[in-house]
Amino acid sequence: MWRELAPIGRHPDSGGYRRYAWSAADADCRRWFRAQAEARGLTLETDRNGNQWAWLGDPLAGDAVVTGSHLDSVPDGGAFDGPLGVVSSFAALDELRGRGVEFTRPLAITNFGDEEGARFGLACVGSRLAAGQLTAEAAHRLRDGDGVTLPQAMEAAGYDPDAIGPDPERLARIGAFVELHVEQGRALDLTGDPVGIASAIWPHGRWRFDFRGEANHAGTTRLADRRDPMLTYAETVLAARREAEAAGALATFGKIAVEPNGVNAIPSLVRGWLDSRAADQDTLDAVVTGIERAAREHAERAGIDLDVVRESFTPVVEFRHALRDELGTILKGAATRGDGRAVPVLGTGAGHDAGILSASAPTAMLFVRNPTGISHSPAEHAAEDDCVAGVIALADVLEGLACR
Amino acid sequence: MWRELAPIGRHPDSGGYRRYAWSAADADCRRWFRAQAEARGLTLETDRNGNQWAWLGDPLAGDAVVTGSHLDSVPDGGAFDGPLGVVSSFAALDELRGRGVEFTRPLAITNFGDEEGARFGLACVGSRLAAGQLTAEAAHRLRDGDGVTLPQAMEAAGYDPDAIGPDPERLARIGAFVELHVEQGRALDLTGDPVGIASAIWPHGRWRFDFRGEANHAGTTRLADRRDPMLTYAETVLAARREAEAAGALATFGKIAVEPNGVNAIPSLVRGWLDSRAADQDTLDAVVTGIERAAREHAERAGIDLDVVRESFTPVVEFRHALRDELGTILKGAATRGDGRAVPVLGTGAGHDAGILSASAPTAMLFVRNPTGISHSPAEHAAEDDCVAGVIALADVLEGLACR
Repeated sequence: MWRELAPIGRHPDSGGYRRYAWSAADADCRRWFRAQAEARGLTLETDRNGNQWAWLGDPLAGDAVVTGSHLDSVPDGGAFDGPLGVVSSFAALDELRGRGVEFTRPLAITNFGDEEGARFGLACVGSRLAAGQLTAEAAHRLRDGDGVTLPQAMEAAGYDPDAIGPDPERLARIGAFVELHVEQGRALDLTGDPVGIASAIWPHGRWRFDFRGEANHAGTTRLADRRDPMLTYAETVLAARREAEAAGALATFGKIAVEPNGVNAIPSLVRGWLDSRAADQDTLDAVVTGIERAAREHAERAGIDLDVVRESFTPVVEFRHALRDELGTILKGAATRGDGRAVPVLGTGAGHDAGILSASAPTAMLFVRNPTGISHSPAEHAAEDDCVAGVIALADVLEGLACR
Repeated sequence: MWRELAPIGRHPDSGGYRRYAWSAADADCRRWFRAQAEARGLTLETDRNGNQWAWLGDPLAGDAVVTGSHLDSVPDGGAFDGPLGVVSSFAALDELRGRGVEFTRPLAITNFGDEEGARFGLACVGSRLAAGQLTAEAAHRLRDGDGVTLPQAMEAAGYDPDAIGPDPERLARIGAFVELHVEQGRALDLTGDPVGIASAIWPHGRWRFDFRGEANHAGTTRLADRRDPMLTYAETVLAARREAEAAGALATFGKIAVEPNGVNAIPSLVRGWLDSRAADQDTLDAVVTGIERAAREHAERAGIDLDVVRESFTPVVEFRHALRDELGTILKGAATRGDGRAVPVLGTGAGHDAGILSASAPTAMLFVRNPTGISHSPAEHAAEDDCVAGVIALADVLEGLACR
């Protein structure tokens, strides 16, 4: 399976993947998914929002066990983020068929569309639309960097953009959704476990800091006469790191826009975007408040005007304790592991379709160890043994949920 | 004169000027220059590099007194940087004609092309080509942000790009070049003088700092596992300010490029450009060495790879002492001033055509007070009284040089 999927959307220079929603690479990934479903005699459905479902058993029976992930990527992303969950789902089904188990509930494998949001700037579009967390009107207004709207892109890919919207009947058929994903950190590497269970997705948000000073000639303006917003930005970047470190949280300035951005010009405007996440809401609030306070103090001293705008925010997603505990029990007792050791339960700072769907159905996640912790980069990695352990764990979970 | 020039190339939103080389606004400025020359009965020449010359007397006689500046602008530049020198030159000629003086040397007023380098990234292209400091081959390779080459732009504006190149015969005819310019700092405001004489153009250069770290997910990567080049960049921005402050020099990070520049991505690359200037070479060397040392220390500690590349460098330009002293003597004794006070002599961090031409001919500069010190911005300003004082001082200088 990997061999056929590996070359799709891979950029020859970077070695990274560029599988953006509704692109040619995305269509190739979807064709691959269809072929996998057909090879296993599964019934393929594409829902109104372009998400793919491969069914074993009656899709309409309800109380289905659903697994899967996504196939699209960030710019120059790695091979595992998304595809590992889809490939492992098909492999787990093969494993279960090898075990000769009988399914007592319908099973589906999914490929959710546009999870990364690399093209239109909003993540989890496929699951958000289905769950009613994004309206069709808002989705119709999305535009990519070339000015192409989401409806234009869908139409060009052969999909009907007028069909998109909430899909409550479909989501109501889900009895349990389990998404396997490569870990995007080093928690499992530190505990020495190949597989873990998700506890929660941390609350997270994006804040835009606009530092406005005074454009001037870098070659003639005395330091004392300057109102240089780059200095205040720099102080704020360092303050963000200090605040996050003190609170055990995350804070990152990874995107910047400068005006006029000339070598010999003191900037009039430095716009920096803060991404911050923490295990709970109070900690996140304290971190962001601390960063903003530091920024305002430095701005005040340097004669810089500062505006801070919260551009997006996602509250904590606590995965269903009952399903999460059931997964823990299944895996602890699984014959394939045999040591009776508890599987670690860990939080994550990253958003996932499972997080979106958790508002509509019981959801859970399995993580596979990522020894470097690197993700959203071609250096993202999972060892083959750990991938196999992930497939076995997913098969154990699906057997435990769907075959009793 | 100002009234006809004022609307050309003015952007309705910013109120700033966008008079880029070989653009429609540039052509309008050139037409304005031609009309001013014709209205005064001057002989207009456009040299092989597109610089305009308006002659009173025989252009070929030699030992000419030349004055003028440029009409192009930086993006959203002010009204005075360049045009004040050209307008004052015509006004000074009017003043001298009113005085009824007789010219004993030929006089020319110039408009040098592409002084700001806003379009093709290299400043003083017109004077550099004439002085042989830029080859035609190198100029032919210049490209603007839209990929248009300099030859294409010249041709579109009706000029012959194959004609460009060194013009030693023309420059040899210059006995003295005096450029009047709005001051790009507050030195005259601090001494309380409307007009000053330039001593030297500070040595200055541009250095590119490439900070390379590791791209990673901003939502999942532990702080301890990060190699975030934005942090090292921020430390370096603050170090540059400290080093410059301690040395009485200038250092600015005004331009930045980040990869991948995503809100939820720790950058793999932060590229920052340092502009630094000082009154002498040793001070400048010490400042840049200090900034680089600080950057390397922080980079080492954070696991960041750092490359520093000097992209351009201009050594100190000391204006001819004889001409500079002559200007001082003329102005000190001028009847129009009458107080016998010496005119202040000051250095500047900005490059000028006069600096380029100083290698080929005796050059000097006059500065007119700029109360805010702001330049390269619509807020750039000179009071009307000070502009008049500049015209009178320039007339005095031209009379002293060309009418004795």
